[in-house]
Amino acid sequence: MVELPVVEGEVVPCCPPVTSAALSEADSVRMAAMFKALSDPVRLRLFSRVASHEGGEACVCDIQDVGVSQPTVSHHLKKLREAGLLSSQRRGTWVYYRVEPSVLAAMAGLLVGSR
Amino acid sequence: MVELPVVEGEVVPCCPPVTSAALSEADSVRMAAMFKALSDPVRLRLFSRVASHEGGEACVCDIQDVGVSQPTVSHHLKKLREAGLLSSQRRGTWVYYRVEPSVLAAMAGLLVGSR
Repeated sequence: MVELPVVEGEVVPCCPPVTSAALSEADSVRMAAMFKALSDPVRLRLFSRVASHEGGEACVCDIQDVGVSQPTVSHHLKKLREAGLLSSQRRGTWVYYRVEPSVLAAMAGLLVGSR
Repeated sequence: MVELPVVEGEVVPCCPPVTSAALSEADSVRMAAMFKALSDPVRLRLFSRVASHEGGEACVCDIQDVGVSQPTVSHHLKKLREAGLLSSQRRGTWVYYRVEPSVLAAMAGLLVGSR
């Protein structure tokens, strides 16, 4: 399981931007895992459903309209959680998924440096 | 082959940021292909070798020290070129690879919006 180190209110990219220096082998493994989590169209649309939902949070019941079966939705959400891109919380019947803007900012920072 | 539409001096992301609205199926296919190109550690290190080289350009002879065979290096460079992340130019004996900063900025824009 690869997770981005997210500190409250701060953006802490795991790795130096790709343009600043040649990546180490260890950093390349971490970064590749993050990009891989977004490399499937259905997974990316599920992620987008959560990211664009009010407050950056969505009930799993809100984001099932991507044309695949419920077990497939669950599989993709698990992959996104394992990559540290989504967090989840059970409330009563439903599981809610949340994307932290700092994670997106950290990933963008890997491409173009900190802002 | 999926290419980012890069206009000279301008950043033109192919797709809306994931946080702005739920992605369409077509956009998700394009974006996923870009992320996929960076989802392999060796490919990411080759990309970083080029991105961090002087002037954002490197001879293929400069970037072979990533611990894989030369045919594997060629295979990964081809994938990066097909995804629109690198361009290449033959000069005499060697092929030179170049990364356009606007492509990195466009990818980052997909994650956090335009800057």
